[in-house]
Amino acid sequence: MDEKMKQALIDIVGEANVTDELIDLVSYSYDSSEISHRPDCAVWAETTAQVADIMKLANKMKIPVVPRGAGTGLSAMAVPVKGGIVLDLCRMNRIIKVSIEDRMAVVQPGVVYADLEKALAKDGFFFPPDPGSGKSATLGGNVATNAGGIKGAKYGTTRDYVLGLEVVLPDGRIMRTGSNCMKSVSGYDLTRLIVGSEGTLGIVTEIIFKINPKPTKTATAMATFDSLEDAGRAVTAIMYSGIIPSVLEILGRECLQAINQNTDLNLPEVDAMLLAETDGYTQAEADFQIEKIIAVFKNNTPREVKQAQSAAEAVDLWKARKSAYAVLARIKSHFMLEDVTVPMGRIADLLKGVAAISEKHAIQIATFGHAGDGNLHPQILYDGYDPDQVGRMEAATADLFQLAIDLEGTLTGEHGIGLAKAPFMHLEHDEVAMDIMRRTKQMFDPNNILNPGKMALEV
Amino acid sequence: MDEKMKQALIDIVGEANVTDELIDLVSYSYDSSEISHRPDCAVWAETTAQVADIMKLANKMKIPVVPRGAGTGLSAMAVPVKGGIVLDLCRMNRIIKVSIEDRMAVVQPGVVYADLEKALAKDGFFFPPDPGSGKSATLGGNVATNAGGIKGAKYGTTRDYVLGLEVVLPDGRIMRTGSNCMKSVSGYDLTRLIVGSEGTLGIVTEIIFKINPKPTKTATAMATFDSLEDAGRAVTAIMYSGIIPSVLEILGRECLQAINQNTDLNLPEVDAMLLAETDGYTQAEADFQIEKIIAVFKNNTPREVKQAQSAAEAVDLWKARKSAYAVLARIKSHFMLEDVTVPMGRIADLLKGVAAISEKHAIQIATFGHAGDGNLHPQILYDGYDPDQVGRMEAATADLFQLAIDLEGTLTGEHGIGLAKAPFMHLEHDEVAMDIMRRTKQMFDPNNILNPGKMALEV
Repeated sequence: MDEKMKQALIDIVGEANVTDELIDLVSYSYDSSEISHRPDCAVWAETTAQVADIMKLANKMKIPVVPRGAGTGLSAMAVPVKGGIVLDLCRMNRIIKVSIEDRMAVVQPGVVYADLEKALAKDGFFFPPDPGSGKSATLGGNVATNAGGIKGAKYGTTRDYVLGLEVVLPDGRIMRTGSNCMKSVSGYDLTRLIVGSEGTLGIVTEIIFKINPKPTKTATAMATFDSLEDAGRAVTAIMYSGIIPSVLEILGRECLQAINQNTDLNLPEVDAMLLAETDGYTQAEADFQIEKIIAVFKNNTPREVKQAQSAAEAVDLWKARKSAYAVLARIKSHFMLEDVTVPMGRIADLLKGVAAISEKHAIQIATFGHAGDGNLHPQILYDGYDPDQVGRMEAATADLFQLAIDLEGTLTGEHGIGLAKAPFMHLEHDEVAMDIMRRTKQMFDPNNILNPGKMALEV
Repeated sequence: MDEKMKQALIDIVGEANVTDELIDLVSYSYDSSEISHRPDCAVWAETTAQVADIMKLANKMKIPVVPRGAGTGLSAMAVPVKGGIVLDLCRMNRIIKVSIEDRMAVVQPGVVYADLEKALAKDGFFFPPDPGSGKSATLGGNVATNAGGIKGAKYGTTRDYVLGLEVVLPDGRIMRTGSNCMKSVSGYDLTRLIVGSEGTLGIVTEIIFKINPKPTKTATAMATFDSLEDAGRAVTAIMYSGIIPSVLEILGRECLQAINQNTDLNLPEVDAMLLAETDGYTQAEADFQIEKIIAVFKNNTPREVKQAQSAAEAVDLWKARKSAYAVLARIKSHFMLEDVTVPMGRIADLLKGVAAISEKHAIQIATFGHAGDGNLHPQILYDGYDPDQVGRMEAATADLFQLAIDLEGTLTGEHGIGLAKAPFMHLEHDEVAMDIMRRTKQMFDPNNILNPGKMALEV
């Protein structure tokens, strides 16, 4: 790191908040993906003014800046692939305001999802988009990736809850977007242009969230199906049943087998397991919905249907689903967790396609995910120290993206593009949309210093 | 209209679909606002390819094009203030697909809201953002203005339901945004940049909507309050009650008086009336919520509280609210219907401020609106043939916008900026946000031919 640049950063944030020691640079070289690259230094910012000064400096010197929260992203959006400065925002972690009467929470980007959840629970409220990594993921990351979660079908994703933002632009100017109101149609929706932009257009320094009262009652049921077709027909019939489950998860055969081999859950090794949860403010409402779902399950040749009769039984039904990610992550030295998404009517086709890809490339792929919104997580298990397996994993990944697009789906339902999926953007987006995205990036960041290299935005 | 240009348009859409007859030009000179300006011609397009050819031609000749649906907008976004071509999209009115299993509807922009509603009702589904003008408003207009509606508090606005778009850009290129999926975070959210952009960035030629199963049960209650403070406290207490009403409307004193003077409804002339509806899939759920609301009403010194015991009684409770707009519209020769929006905790302050503005300018302002999401509709009644009254209406409007901003609100919750609110954009948006909006417009439309003059986007 250039000494003059380092001193300029120290002048902004203080000596204790700038590091270029190797141990730190290694820590900041990766996120939760398999990709890594070392930055030249890391900086902790504590105020919007500091972020603005850092951007002014970096823009003048044309040095890359990569904003970073907890680093839980799976698509390498926080990896400093072109070096430069990693800007850690975790210390901007103040919940500025919770206003139940205005149905809003105002937070800094470094607030951890679980901490907001705790703050809202006091008043019976919640912020619905709950990423799997919610105990450590920061809300700035939620916004940067438009995080989804297990309740997306009923409650939508992060962008449905962001009312306004404070954003530091690549040139250091500070911009306010949106409003404090539930509704606003005043000017272009710059808020949602920033949401999901993976830190490539600006650095979010304050977020105004809409929040929801949390339904207090739930009901839970599970069914297993010997055939994927039956499971797919059940998902379709649930869509027709006139209700939206708060959770509708699916686990595929490979996933159930892997869980059995690594736990004592002793699951039936069927083509698919569906797990449904419904909610409401009354038990009658939750039960009415779960009964509709159970009727659908029973109409579609299940091997077994179970309804939780107690909270403890619900916990039991959830065990398979809750264990999936961690169990699968331990089987091989490495894994690639994808999040291809299709219209719900194509879920059975997607699972069949995944099985064919697994066979074609002789590589293990276990799939679980959110059947209720079509967002599935095929987890490719491989030995990252074996170049042959890495090659097969890469080939399988490419096939998987093509499969999702062939089924009228999308590359990513909630993990984002980052570096990992950048080479596949052209499969999904036409040249006009790519052109507009690239020109949007150029407009915000003509020197290409903010999180460069991500999302296939470079010409 | 230049004959060469006219012939070129005829070559694209046929002779029957181009007009420059005075009677047509007058019809296309206005929308539902008080502003009007004649175009040079009007064109009906029936295909995306025609729209693209028209834009290529207009872009080459640098002639303004104003896309138009049913013309129900209240902010003059469809008024051809710089002349040129009005492009009527009402004949692109095909519901292309309803897929319940994929929870989606694909429509052309000229489909009327009510026609989609009818098509979805067969399967028990609905498209929640229901503009007051839903019997005539087109869905392209819904998208262009990010239309809200009476159920915004619980169900959000149009942008929460747009999954993807086909858009013709000002240079005639055709772009696809978004996806067919419930969730996608693939690239920048160009979909929501277009939603609410009032036809200034592109012409929407196809829309993919997310749709919802319609709750089948409702409950309705009403309360009147002698003091605005009590009504405001009731709204706040409802926010704390842990539920979201599907409807929470408010009518102010001036509005109740006007309704009494023009109907035989014989309403109490109190400071405020609140009307609440709750919904669910079971009557137990709807009732549980309405009971919470009734308890809140009773705790806040109401003059009267009524709960509908039947569907007929619910219709009675709705009468005052349903009559408001039309009653007010008939009182004077002209009216200006605003839609300032504030955080819900400031509703009483907004109503008090409106009363003060009314008194200051000696002009009648009657207010009703959506207390559940803070979106109020002060309706300024005046004689448009009296320059003095017009002047006072304009001064009151300016004060109203300043009031909304002072209360941390927004100029417009659901009607849009258009021409009517363009002069006030700077009150709400900082110079950086205005700069980004203007450069976004320039990027999409360097010749400024698409709906020019709107939203204060010109440098």
